[in-house]
Amino acid sequence: MLLILKSSATYTDLENLLEKLKWMGLVAHPSGAEERYAIAVVQGMDRETDFELFEKLPMVEKVVEFKHPFKLAAREFKGSRTVIDVNGVKIGGGTLAVMAGPCSIESKEQIEECASIIASENVKILRGGAFKPRTSPYSFQGMGEEGLRYMRDAADKHGLVTITEVMDTDQIELVAEYADILQVGARNMQNFSLMKKLGTCKRPIFLKRGLSATYQDLLMSAEYILDKGNPNVMLCERGIRTYETYSRNTLDLAAVPILHHLSHLPVIADPSHGTGIRMMVTPMARASVAAGADGIMIEVHPRPDEALSDKAQTISPEAFSELMTSLRTIGPAVGIKVP
Amino acid sequence: MLLILKSSATYTDLENLLEKLKWMGLVAHPSGAEERYAIAVVQGMDRETDFELFEKLPMVEKVVEFKHPFKLAAREFKGSRTVIDVNGVKIGGGTLAVMAGPCSIESKEQIEECASIIASENVKILRGGAFKPRTSPYSFQGMGEEGLRYMRDAADKHGLVTITEVMDTDQIELVAEYADILQVGARNMQNFSLMKKLGTCKRPIFLKRGLSATYQDLLMSAEYILDKGNPNVMLCERGIRTYETYSRNTLDLAAVPILHHLSHLPVIADPSHGTGIRMMVTPMARASVAAGADGIMIEVHPRPDEALSDKAQTISPEAFSELMTSLRTIGPAVGIKVP
Amino acid sequence: MLLILKSSATYTDLENLLEKLKWMGLVAHPSGAEERYAIAVVQGMDRETDFELFEKLPMVEKVVEFKHPFKLAAREFKGSRTVIDVNGVKIGGGTLAVMAGPCSIESKEQIEECASIIASENVKILRGGAFKPRTSPYSFQGMGEEGLRYMRDAADKHGLVTITEVMDTDQIELVAEYADILQVGARNMQNFSLMKKLGTCKRPIFLKRGLSATYQDLLMSAEYILDKGNPNVMLCERGIRTYETYSRNTLDLAAVPILHHLSHLPVIADPSHGTGIRMMVTPMARASVAAGADGIMIEVHPRPDEALSDKAQTISPEAFSELMTSLRTIGPAVGIKVP
Amino acid sequence: MLLILKSSATYTDLENLLEKLKWMGLVAHPSGAEERYAIAVVQGMDRETDFELFEKLPMVEKVVEFKHPFKLAAREFKGSRTVIDVNGVKIGGGTLAVMAGPCSIESKEQIEECASIIASENVKILRGGAFKPRTSPYSFQGMGEEGLRYMRDAADKHGLVTITEVMDTDQIELVAEYADILQVGARNMQNFSLMKKLGTCKRPIFLKRGLSATYQDLLMSAEYILDKGNPNVMLCERGIRTYETYSRNTLDLAAVPILHHLSHLPVIADPSHGTGIRMMVTPMARASVAAGADGIMIEVHPRPDEALSDKAQTISPEAFSELMTSLRTIGPAVGIKVP
Repeated sequence: MLLILKSSATYTDLENLLEKLKWMGLVAHPSGAEERYAIAVVQGMDRETDFELFEKLPMVEKVVEFKHPFKLAAREFKGSRTVIDVNGVKIGGGTLAVMAGPCSIESKEQIEECASIIASENVKILRGGAFKPRTSPYSFQGMGEEGLRYMRDAADKHGLVTITEVMDTDQIELVAEYADILQVGARNMQNFSLMKKLGTCKRPIFLKRGLSATYQDLLMSAEYILDKGNPNVMLCERGIRTYETYSRNTLDLAAVPILHHLSHLPVIADPSHGTGIRMMVTPMARASVAAGADGIMIEVHPRPDEALSDKAQTISPEAFSELMTSLRTIGPAVGIKVP
Repeated sequence: MLLILKSSATYTDLENLLEKLKWMGLVAHPSGAEERYAIAVVQGMDRETDFELFEKLPMVEKVVEFKHPFKLAAREFKGSRTVIDVNGVKIGGGTLAVMAGPCSIESKEQIEECASIIASENVKILRGGAFKPRTSPYSFQGMGEEGLRYMRDAADKHGLVTITEVMDTDQIELVAEYADILQVGARNMQNFSLMKKLGTCKRPIFLKRGLSATYQDLLMSAEYILDKGNPNVMLCERGIRTYETYSRNTLDLAAVPILHHLSHLPVIADPSHGTGIRMMVTPMARASVAAGADGIMIEVHPRPDEALSDKAQTISPEAFSELMTSLRTIGPAVGIKVP
Repeated sequence: MLLILKSSATYTDLENLLEKLKWMGLVAHPSGAEERYAIAVVQGMDRETDFELFEKLPMVEKVVEFKHPFKLAAREFKGSRTVIDVNGVKIGGGTLAVMAGPCSIESKEQIEECASIIASENVKILRGGAFKPRTSPYSFQGMGEEGLRYMRDAADKHGLVTITEVMDTDQIELVAEYADILQVGARNMQNFSLMKKLGTCKRPIFLKRGLSATYQDLLMSAEYILDKGNPNVMLCERGIRTYETYSRNTLDLAAVPILHHLSHLPVIADPSHGTGIRMMVTPMARASVAAGADGIMIEVHPRPDEALSDKAQTISPEAFSELMTSLRTIGPAVGIKVP
Repeated sequence: MLLILKSSATYTDLENLLEKLKWMGLVAHPSGAEERYAIAVVQGMDRETDFELFEKLPMVEKVVEFKHPFKLAAREFKGSRTVIDVNGVKIGGGTLAVMAGPCSIESKEQIEECASIIASENVKILRGGAFKPRTSPYSFQGMGEEGLRYMRDAADKHGLVTITEVMDTDQIELVAEYADILQVGARNMQNFSLMKKLGTCKRPIFLKRGLSATYQDLLMSAEYILDKGNPNVMLCERGIRTYETYSRNTLDLAAVPILHHLSHLPVIADPSHGTGIRMMVTPMARASVAAGADGIMIEVHPRPDEALSDKAQTISPEAFSELMTSLRTIGPAVGIKVP
């Protein structure tokens, strides 16, 4: 249930109402979008709750029922779309957020080189994995903290912000110390213990859609994070698992407009994992932007064929540069600025 | 096995070689691409066939083994991409082919109105269903021949070519009399009797990917048509069936670059069936073009909410016009002219 | 809408009511199950139809709304389950129907040998393909009419009935001349032209579930056949296409109890195509019977490794015999007699 | 690479060889199956490793290459199938392991009642959730430690062993204190941090297949646990996610014989989650046993319609009793004793 307040309502009105709801045994979250105040009541109601009574509360303009089981992640919760500010870099809000870099951080030199490559394309967000969730226990598991440190240094040198994966609750504190955005991998999207703890973390969260997660599943996982108090969640379409095995995954680009329709959160597409095929990254990155994505995540490596992981889907600096050039025409055609 | 002839080979050399192969009990198809002659041997070899012997045949430059079970549909069969000429309208070859119109032909007036709408956007291919494959025997099954006649008249009046579905072997002759391109629906993609008969038909074929067909399945069905002598086949990505039920289908846009990589045939995307949601047609049509599609198929109706079928995914003339405008920027960014 | 007649209603009452409904512009089908007469009204109603009025018609006991879009295939249409009598061999009704034989009819001797093998296990239904829907145009396409003749002879010699596939409308007459049950392959399940024509045929139809068909899709295709007047339809679960590629298909055995719940039609399981792996045929055949299947279809060949098609999933006469032995214990545990 | 030792090899030979391999920089695990000793070398080899050299090591009979990326979980690693002994209750080895009880532990009385119900059917393993992974943060999340205590008491009173879910690394110690078998839910199957830590735990692990996990994915997750030193892993087929939405999941029973073919670990089927439909639990449980499962997991509740979670798929004590009766006939038909 969403209580939308009158346009004349003040912040004090909002606080009073929240207190009253709490006293009634309800769990409620305020929405302070620019245009209007609103309050989502997420727990405590039952089937017998008389919604009409809430319309009579002071300063309540109208009561809206949520259409889906997600509430804080729902479009109607906020009057506007969420824009996440990561140390001055905006995600959402009309400028394409490009996140680029290697699959794995491999050495101090490698991540430095990557930072330099992407900075030269005016890209502001450096990606790189330090803790790697590998299907096999015998595969390279990442450089860990050492890698995080290298990435931090490389980013700082080029004025970039960073994103890297966190694999479990025990790692959050360490990773949050070094990285600006915390990524949750597809295989952990329904690790609810992790979601809850990320909800209490100060860093923005980059939440990848699970291999067989529905849009609703994804938004329910985001809801766990939002419900615990972290409002800065990005959704990432990275390909789903289907019967087609030619590509590593099936990049479901309709997720972009559909998630925009269902939620106020920014939506990023990952054509690297979404296809798993180097040759397909560029066309699918273009398609992602044309579909209206707020950002893209691209695996770039100075020498793709030497990459320690995901080399089949990693593109070269030259290919990356060409991609960026074409995006600078496509973006504006759909109302998105490309740096 | 593909025999690529020497650049000095003449048409007579090609014919001589074909005759010799036939005499050897092999089934072979010539490829007369501009750059070079080639011959695909598709049947008659067995495991013991000594490929090297063929390299010694007169005028043979080299012998290439096909990487996949499709041969005439394979990229390597031709030196260039297939461009299909439908009464002067080109499909493939760098200009976007837009196929637009209603799901079903409903009346003389309705299809006329549709023809007029799309012609005003400089679109040259009118779509419309006369024989409708409906899941339920109790749903509207289409206007049949009467509808075909109305569409023909409407198209002729506006200088358009037409595309419509053919549901079984018995209908081919009738439909081919009225329509310029024959469409095979997703549910018929592996109706091999139909494929064989379409292979002997003079009209170009528009082959929709089945709901759970792999890229290879699709190309094998195309192979049936090509093998019977009809070289003009278009492939259509129209969404596959996945676990996600919010959208009607999951439009697999990676099919566009992947099919281009595997085959020389033109690839069209259908964002209307691919999403089943009106609001998603425009972003996904844009994404289709950005991904490099040779064309798009769009359901347009003068009054979408009154459409007798597929109204949930049919867009209005205004939305169609806006879409075309944005495509005129996106297309050139990926090397495709948009009329 | 289903009109259930009073227990006192006579056949004349049924006919009178049918005539009246026809006069009202409705399309209706009678259900003459042992216990009670009923009439399904399948077409002609609209949203405004006042269901209560029908309760006032003479001899109508009550009016039931169909829960699903299929009606004649629905459980509620009949008071009892359908039992199909194929020249004295019953399908449905508590005795396991075993259909066994080679994938393809390969020669007079081979099909004779197969007939002899299955007859020695007291199995009454011989399967074998004469027209084969192959993914590749270059694969063995079946022996055609010659094969049909061989199978007929072999079956007659051993007192068996036969089942074989029909691929298109043009083949129906020919195949129906030789075979007792006509099979529709998975890839043709939504070939609606074929469904309609099979509805006018006198032979029972064996309808295989499409690779990505829902239970409802399958029942809607059955509805096409029933609606045209052929009441003898068997449903076959033969595996669906999923992301798992180790097995050829994923045999969805829950289809057995679910289709029994939704429909009155007999349900057969095909563990040969359902797994595509010889070693898995026996355990999955046992599981099919334990799940309550009315029958199973099994590919058996005197020398499986020499089979011209599907050899990977074909079992030997010895394995078949062992399977039958174990079924004679499992069947009775779930109320099914095994011959 | 698997080194199979000569039949004359002693335990000391095994230890000597392990030490030598360690000295060579290789990671190796011994397999002490009854029939023969063997050693799996899982890490440290590279492409250049000369396998033939290992055949010359003392006491090595032969060197076998692993066919799949899983090694310790592979069938060939052990000479016999794994039998897990949980305080005297055997899982694997020819007697059906039945795990039954409520979805969630709801109260002291409820879990007591459940324990009593299953004990009266001679069932030895009590299931019940205390920490519940729920899609929504607003759903009942389980009773936590209090629930664990209630279950322990109920089990002890009736001489049962218990199984319950552990959701993250922080919970392992607590849950292992109360429960005998630790369950990993489908959504956590690729939570590799959790796998690693479970590998150092003394309790047997019950590993559920992820919603879109392949057989190989599942075995690779088991490999993580085995590699860290815990040899007692059970695999559970609990339904995968497909396009079919009538049932909650698609129970892939072919997983039973296929996992038995690929691995030595016991395989359990969960027809409750596998279907999500009460009416389908009994037929699918029977099918599971007929397919050769080492055990089944069933949700039973004294009053299913009052269950706080999963009530749609929970069966009554009466239904459970009838199921057990039928299993006592089906089991022996496939060589499995049912208590």
